[in-house]
Amino acid sequence: MIISMKLGATKEQIEDICKRIEDFGYRVHSIQGEERVVIAAVGTGDVTHCLESLRSYDSVESAVRISAPYKFVSRQYRLDRTQIAVGNTVVGGDEFVVIAGPCSVETEEQIMATAEAVASAGGKVLRGGAYKPRTSPYDFQGLEEEGLKLLRKAGDAHGLAVITEVMTVTNVNLVAEYTDILQIGARNVQNFPLLKAVGRVDRPVMLKRGLSSTIKELLLSAEYVVSHGNPNVILCERGIRTFETETRNVLDIQAVPVLNKLTHLPVVLDPAHSSGKRDLIPQIACACVAIGADGMMVETHPNPESAWSDGPQSLTFDGFKKMMDGLKPYLQIWQANRAVAVPS
Amino acid sequence: MIISMKLGATKEQIEDICKRIEDFGYRVHSIQGEERVVIAAVGTGDVTHCLESLRSYDSVESAVRISAPYKFVSRQYRLDRTQIAVGNTVVGGDEFVVIAGPCSVETEEQIMATAEAVASAGGKVLRGGAYKPRTSPYDFQGLEEEGLKLLRKAGDAHGLAVITEVMTVTNVNLVAEYTDILQIGARNVQNFPLLKAVGRVDRPVMLKRGLSSTIKELLLSAEYVVSHGNPNVILCERGIRTFETETRNVLDIQAVPVLNKLTHLPVVLDPAHSSGKRDLIPQIACACVAIGADGMMVETHPNPESAWSDGPQSLTFDGFKKMMDGLKPYLQIWQANRAVAVPS
Amino acid sequence: MIISMKLGATKEQIEDICKRIEDFGYRVHSIQGEERVVIAAVGTGDVTHCLESLRSYDSVESAVRISAPYKFVSRQYRLDRTQIAVGNTVVGGDEFVVIAGPCSVETEEQIMATAEAVASAGGKVLRGGAYKPRTSPYDFQGLEEEGLKLLRKAGDAHGLAVITEVMTVTNVNLVAEYTDILQIGARNVQNFPLLKAVGRVDRPVMLKRGLSSTIKELLLSAEYVVSHGNPNVILCERGIRTFETETRNVLDIQAVPVLNKLTHLPVVLDPAHSSGKRDLIPQIACACVAIGADGMMVETHPNPESAWSDGPQSLTFDGFKKMMDGLKPYLQIWQANRAVAVPS
Amino acid sequence: MIISMKLGATKEQIEDICKRIEDFGYRVHSIQGEERVVIAAVGTGDVTHCLESLRSYDSVESAVRISAPYKFVSRQYRLDRTQIAVGNTVVGGDEFVVIAGPCSVETEEQIMATAEAVASAGGKVLRGGAYKPRTSPYDFQGLEEEGLKLLRKAGDAHGLAVITEVMTVTNVNLVAEYTDILQIGARNVQNFPLLKAVGRVDRPVMLKRGLSSTIKELLLSAEYVVSHGNPNVILCERGIRTFETETRNVLDIQAVPVLNKLTHLPVVLDPAHSSGKRDLIPQIACACVAIGADGMMVETHPNPESAWSDGPQSLTFDGFKKMMDGLKPYLQIWQANRAVAVPS
Repeated sequence: MIISMKLGATKEQIEDICKRIEDFGYRVHSIQGEERVVIAAVGTGDVTHCLESLRSYDSVESAVRISAPYKFVSRQYRLDRTQIAVGNTVVGGDEFVVIAGPCSVETEEQIMATAEAVASAGGKVLRGGAYKPRTSPYDFQGLEEEGLKLLRKAGDAHGLAVITEVMTVTNVNLVAEYTDILQIGARNVQNFPLLKAVGRVDRPVMLKRGLSSTIKELLLSAEYVVSHGNPNVILCERGIRTFETETRNVLDIQAVPVLNKLTHLPVVLDPAHSSGKRDLIPQIACACVAIGADGMMVETHPNPESAWSDGPQSLTFDGFKKMMDGLKPYLQIWQANRAVAVPS
Repeated sequence: MIISMKLGATKEQIEDICKRIEDFGYRVHSIQGEERVVIAAVGTGDVTHCLESLRSYDSVESAVRISAPYKFVSRQYRLDRTQIAVGNTVVGGDEFVVIAGPCSVETEEQIMATAEAVASAGGKVLRGGAYKPRTSPYDFQGLEEEGLKLLRKAGDAHGLAVITEVMTVTNVNLVAEYTDILQIGARNVQNFPLLKAVGRVDRPVMLKRGLSSTIKELLLSAEYVVSHGNPNVILCERGIRTFETETRNVLDIQAVPVLNKLTHLPVVLDPAHSSGKRDLIPQIACACVAIGADGMMVETHPNPESAWSDGPQSLTFDGFKKMMDGLKPYLQIWQANRAVAVPS
Repeated sequence: MIISMKLGATKEQIEDICKRIEDFGYRVHSIQGEERVVIAAVGTGDVTHCLESLRSYDSVESAVRISAPYKFVSRQYRLDRTQIAVGNTVVGGDEFVVIAGPCSVETEEQIMATAEAVASAGGKVLRGGAYKPRTSPYDFQGLEEEGLKLLRKAGDAHGLAVITEVMTVTNVNLVAEYTDILQIGARNVQNFPLLKAVGRVDRPVMLKRGLSSTIKELLLSAEYVVSHGNPNVILCERGIRTFETETRNVLDIQAVPVLNKLTHLPVVLDPAHSSGKRDLIPQIACACVAIGADGMMVETHPNPESAWSDGPQSLTFDGFKKMMDGLKPYLQIWQANRAVAVPS
Repeated sequence: MIISMKLGATKEQIEDICKRIEDFGYRVHSIQGEERVVIAAVGTGDVTHCLESLRSYDSVESAVRISAPYKFVSRQYRLDRTQIAVGNTVVGGDEFVVIAGPCSVETEEQIMATAEAVASAGGKVLRGGAYKPRTSPYDFQGLEEEGLKLLRKAGDAHGLAVITEVMTVTNVNLVAEYTDILQIGARNVQNFPLLKAVGRVDRPVMLKRGLSSTIKELLLSAEYVVSHGNPNVILCERGIRTFETETRNVLDIQAVPVLNKLTHLPVVLDPAHSSGKRDLIPQIACACVAIGADGMMVETHPNPESAWSDGPQSLTFDGFKKMMDGLKPYLQIWQANRAVAVPS
């Protein structure tokens, strides 16, 4: 920790602070600058509590930690990148994994047709919501367990792993029964009881970044899951909220190389939710491959114009196929690069 | 709804869209502008589904609703403002309600001393967290039921109503047993299962705006609670996330008059979480009264420097007392204005 | 400066960095933490250049300065607050200064009538644009020098000081001839040649915060003006850009107490540009007084519905009068507080 | 225009509004909805002034334009994409144009060495600042005309076109003498006198998006340049300001396909300013090619650790060469796609 004292802090105040720091088990180095005193604290202890305490003193200007606030998810903790096997693919491995499907599971016919379209175009994981987080209480809220069954059936029929969102602690076990990956939605990225609950099950988790989560907060949310026992977390950047309104959100594509420096967890992108517009997705998808993400999630629906949700950002089957065809040359480069990447 | 067709939309495409709108039960007015066709849809129907569907057509440039997406919380639905009795005060009534207490309930001694300080300085509601949403899994997570008991005891001993946060559906009934107001934290503002659950209990709810919630989204979250049966919702603006880092968040004080135009629900402000800095709070508190809010929530602790959480933004008892004294002349104006306000 | 070395930085890299710092004239304190080495640099030197250099090394994780990057505008540089006399009032003195007038000077009749309305309701400074920054090239761009003359005439006729915006270096002298305060608009807050130019004239400057300026950047822009010779700078918070769309901008009212801690310069607020909506302004204005600002700027127009610009946020004369009447009790508190404020 | 009347607007108010709209030369269609009246205005007139006027009426809830507020820069105005020849390349043509060079021109040796490195690795345009916009008045402000001469000399010696920033109206002609492309920096994106001035010279302009410019505002700024006579504008997305602090800014890569739908002007990206970190740039650069931009600008310096500005985001010559090598397979796809793109 580095603690900057206020201008004009007295000798007594500085000694008080040094003593307080030592009470937490740290050693202190006090440095007299031109303007003010800066104290460096070295050691191990309850850093969060210590920082909060120091910031509460009127004599302290600021107190910042130097070490990362997360442990298990950091690059230092684990040298090789986490690989997560689902169905017949591996997220974080030597394949760019495309996850696709409707926003919501609506009918058996719809999800079966979609699974076929996804599988035949090269997708590896089938998505489909059974419990839907909707901003308005008057919007369709999902088929619930019936939706889970249909999703599982469709995935099995076409050799696809399946992913679906879980929204509440009480449903975690039920949803985990039917799905290969538990999705935590952007709105629940700091729903800590839910993070703990999915940390206790034996199912990979895909954690979506919140609309205004910093990258550090996203990693701390992942740390909740991992520290409760579940090491298999996939991070998903899906666009952040800014002042721009031409697109639904702004895709923070730079987050991919940043996360690759900070964590060993795999990272996927969601250009459907970031753009909100079907016609933009194929071009953005190319950039998602080129930036070096581990995969991508998009929405596809047999008839977007009659979808119960997210129609404007859902690709038709034909559009999905064309997007996948357009990705092929980029995927070749991706695989060539991945093949030579030394585990670091 | 107003639907703008793309430039160059064909006659067939326009007819398709009109037919689609009529299928949802609306009447259409098609208007040929200089550049493009605009369609107005009038009537009642499943507006969300209809909008999503229309936006899914390639021939449609945009489709927007004119009516508000919420109903029960709107100013039109209820002409007088909602008044919520808690303890010996009324939120939304003729008193500016000050809610105060520690971030977390820590010990019986701490919460009893705080209750006394709050009551003697004029506070009406005691706050204190028993279940804490912490960004890091390694931070203090709260005393849980023991904390609830201590909070209740302290409130009762000093004639204060109490408020505490509920973080998960499974705890709603337990927390409701001990508290007068259930707080939904900023991170759970779109935790829809939780909103539904607190909508089903007979306890007032204070709903905090999310870090990046729009005012409209906040009202839609309130609509979840009210539409599930609980009309007693207090809205709380607690700062939004922006690029500025001098303060923890930016207090959107303009949200108060905006909300007063849009909804009949009471509105309180939280200058502790918006500023994050103890020394700024007394001055901001004056503005919170002057803007016409129904109340305010702050943090106070017997010894902020040893608080288990939020020490930097916690007032000492002496600081709390001084803040309350500084508010007095503003509260006189507040009450004079409130007395003449005609219910509108 | 505090420099954090990367995890695993070698002894040679650390020595290189220490040497580099010493080359800039600083003394170094190297501290071996549990995880990494942190270096404190003490002394005086070209801190910006040194920081940029250090951050360019691959072995450096981060390098931050401890001292403020501005000097003349800081609270440390000058203990009493800056008071700026304009016309028959003083900004930063013992009067809350209301600046009002139309967005643009349109006609002699319009500006004369407005000056009368402003003066009779208690305003002290008349605003009016002669050169208008308009987002679209097709919008009204101002009456230019003719507008300056009319503004001056109207101010003189009613005993008001006048303020108007200057947009380009070549106009600074001309505008300074006619006006008492030169306004630098939000869009020009980092137009450095313009800041230097107004730094060289003998006229107070009102500097508006940019839509996405941090408070620190605003102070650095003020430092441009002051360091070029003009100490009379008024800072104006006028709303920042966020994701919220109910209001034109979000008024960062907390910036007032923050700025009062950091700088001796006076601070005014602009609730017209922050809200963008006439009916919200009177309530926000009360909060502008209560937060302890030195003044406030609003727009008023004889007939907002036919204003050439900013009509939606312009008060009618009657509305302006009512707002001023509503402020009276708050102004009494303001003055009582100001009277006892010890210069610090 | 679509005008929504307030709930409860009277017949007289509605008629007033209709009359006001007709006075501006539009025809009106008044539509009685379930809740409120909506008026569509059709025709041509002074739309900005009319909208401002309507929004000023208390009886009007909202008034929005349907047509785009810009004309010359829109896709509708010009069917083929604008191609801008500079030096021996064409921006917007069949080559992905890499612009590179130091942040600032420092010495002849530095800029000559850089030009050689840029040219030999495949760059086509040399950048280098002679007038620098610096947040602090105490930072290096550029070599001015001497810098322009050195830049020109270096470009000529190595067959590169050159680009440099112009910051003030009075310098436009001077800078235009020495450079092939005039750069307008992010801080000047709404410096309207400067936009008009570069609109009157016969030199291509690269316009950088402001830190908080919307895409629409960027296009309106470009419209300033084009409407004053200069059709050759290159748009540059260089990262926007958000709450995220891991990178200097957030690169809005989705802006590329959005702009390609809205305008015929070429679009380049600047991953140096968006990321602020040298080690992230090569990976982001691949995405810049894949998203279909027309080019990219980066910084390179013989010795970033001693650069006078922007060292942390400057590539070494070796790093620049490696980045260019890494782009090669992506550039092949880019060119194959560009070859089949039918001008639309």
